[in-house]
Amino acid sequence: MKTRAAVALGAGRPLEVMEVDLEGPRAGEVLVEIKATGVCHTDAFTLSGDDPEGAFPAILGHEGAGVVVETGPGVKGLEPGDHVIPLYTPECRECDFCLNPKTNLCQAIRETQGQGVMPDGSSRFSLDGKPLLHYMGCSTFSNYTVLPEIALAKVRKDAPFEKICYVGCGVTTGIGAVAFTMNVEAGATVAVFGLGGIGLNVVQGARMVGASRIIGVDLNPDREALGRQFGMTEFVNPSEVDDIVGHLVEITGGGVDYSFECIGNVNVMRQALECCHKGWGQSCIVGVAGAGKEISTRPFQLVTGRSWRGTAFGGARGRTDVPRIVDWYMDGRINIDDLITHTMPLDEINTAFDLMHAGESIRSVVLY
Amino acid sequence: MKTRAAVALGAGRPLEVMEVDLEGPRAGEVLVEIKATGVCHTDAFTLSGDDPEGAFPAILGHEGAGVVVETGPGVKGLEPGDHVIPLYTPECRECDFCLNPKTNLCQAIRETQGQGVMPDGSSRFSLDGKPLLHYMGCSTFSNYTVLPEIALAKVRKDAPFEKICYVGCGVTTGIGAVAFTMNVEAGATVAVFGLGGIGLNVVQGARMVGASRIIGVDLNPDREALGRQFGMTEFVNPSEVDDIVGHLVEITGGGVDYSFECIGNVNVMRQALECCHKGWGQSCIVGVAGAGKEISTRPFQLVTGRSWRGTAFGGARGRTDVPRIVDWYMDGRINIDDLITHTMPLDEINTAFDLMHAGESIRSVVLY
Repeated sequence: MKTRAAVALGAGRPLEVMEVDLEGPRAGEVLVEIKATGVCHTDAFTLSGDDPEGAFPAILGHEGAGVVVETGPGVKGLEPGDHVIPLYTPECRECDFCLNPKTNLCQAIRETQGQGVMPDGSSRFSLDGKPLLHYMGCSTFSNYTVLPEIALAKVRKDAPFEKICYVGCGVTTGIGAVAFTMNVEAGATVAVFGLGGIGLNVVQGARMVGASRIIGVDLNPDREALGRQFGMTEFVNPSEVDDIVGHLVEITGGGVDYSFECIGNVNVMRQALECCHKGWGQSCIVGVAGAGKEISTRPFQLVTGRSWRGTAFGGARGRTDVPRIVDWYMDGRINIDDLITHTMPLDEINTAFDLMHAGESIRSVVLY
Repeated sequence: MKTRAAVALGAGRPLEVMEVDLEGPRAGEVLVEIKATGVCHTDAFTLSGDDPEGAFPAILGHEGAGVVVETGPGVKGLEPGDHVIPLYTPECRECDFCLNPKTNLCQAIRETQGQGVMPDGSSRFSLDGKPLLHYMGCSTFSNYTVLPEIALAKVRKDAPFEKICYVGCGVTTGIGAVAFTMNVEAGATVAVFGLGGIGLNVVQGARMVGASRIIGVDLNPDREALGRQFGMTEFVNPSEVDDIVGHLVEITGGGVDYSFECIGNVNVMRQALECCHKGWGQSCIVGVAGAGKEISTRPFQLVTGRSWRGTAFGGARGRTDVPRIVDWYMDGRINIDDLITHTMPLDEINTAFDLMHAGESIRSVVLY
């Protein structure tokens, strides 16, 4: 079949919207009509050429929502008409990782996914007879796409696509970091470094689980009002204090119980660790650092009881947890609407990247 | 009263055994006759002058066992004749740290302890009318010493002083790192970097909790036999493999579940983290690094599910856990006897430091 898609023909070039060829689903695969897709920093990172694993030409996009159109042989858990969210972290429920309760990093199709192809080693997308690569196993910048069944979360049908597409990455990453990876408990004191889309979702995740103090840290004073809207109780602008670590330790009477780095800056990662409370403070790296960057600290920080951890996809097991997060949204326990600051048709998808780079959007969503 | 003690008169100088003056216990304090004391790397570190917090003249030693001689006003939990182990990490059961189940780092007397004095700000030791400093709140290199009640664990009377003194530091640090800090579970795969006294206690702690594979890593081939005696199942000499991290990942099919750094080398700390299994591997820093040294890694290591942690005094709450560890020894669940390779009278205490620096002893114990 033919489908419209925004194609990344090469690093550093704008996406080009065009018709491409899409082959139907093979065994274990599902054809999905994407109804809406968010545009994420990770898409921009790969498009920029800085992602050492980025390959072209490819169809980017990994934060979508849509409807099952057709299922390939052997697909048992989904049928046409089901509403789904694509999962760049699948959940096969059979591999060593899925069977270990300590991780969500299903490895069933990791190798082929990293190569931009389906589990059988081939691509379903092509242009003029030449294959186009899939991206993060999702390629939601195409109106129709094919995914393995294990990479699709089935969600309720009354949830709006143009909102819940964001659960496919940013919402789950932020809320899951708090609720699944770090298991933040009610009454905790939390610091959130960086109040972009991920940071704001960490903030509202902390509010949802009952954290008492939620301290937002951002250089941009405009983020204070937005942070408070999502549950932040205090705001600190690092440019206004001499020593951000010392300041946070002081105002919390010894440090925070949990901190989250949501920027991808290795220096901030160190600050996030060191502002944690002696004895029990735990810091979680959520942001993605540039290639080759390293974090450092004195081992004394850990020996005196701090822990340094990280999260990917918020520790969520996609098929299990993504439908729960959609429920939380529909129940009004989390706010997605106010994070989606811009929408646009596919033809204007490059505007979404411009808005992101200018810091004007929290999240842009493309509506098919 | 007078007591014999090995006094550290200055950095880098041998200890001098002499008679010093000891004042009796004040409110909340206890006079203890030390019957045996281990000589630990930490004593040597402070004596060398490399410890930035080291101060002189002082009476070192922090790994003892003895008998209560006299109690000061207000002491309720101990009476003359009780057998006790001094605790450099006390347990007041009242401070914010003691009341938080996530930590053992009681802060009740931390400041004065760090200054080498009792909680009221004065020293009980003196020489020719001039005060001598206490050390780590213990000063077990004196035949008689005074400690706060909260810094004494009451233990059973049938346990031999010359063995259980080692529970005051090394045994508890190693076994506690496994059992209390990291909560290693039965069936786990564990790597132990450095098979000195601490490392061997980590090994036997891992055996006690039922770890399936216990991989010892040491440059000294002589440590293999000793390691196996304490439960090590595999030995790797890093000088015999190209890449210790890659080798450990390979032989474990992806990495270890838990690793312990028992040396104090920041490069080894990085190896210990990076040989952990993606998704769930946790690394614990037990060794004490030199002043100013820093650990580093790529944040990707943490984002993909590894955790970096540390331990002090094995996460043990001294008054609660030290008596339990003494029970484990008396029940034959752990082996202390074979770790105590040398004993000597107080007059020969400098020999213990010589044996340690030559790598000839696991643990030397001074018998009063």
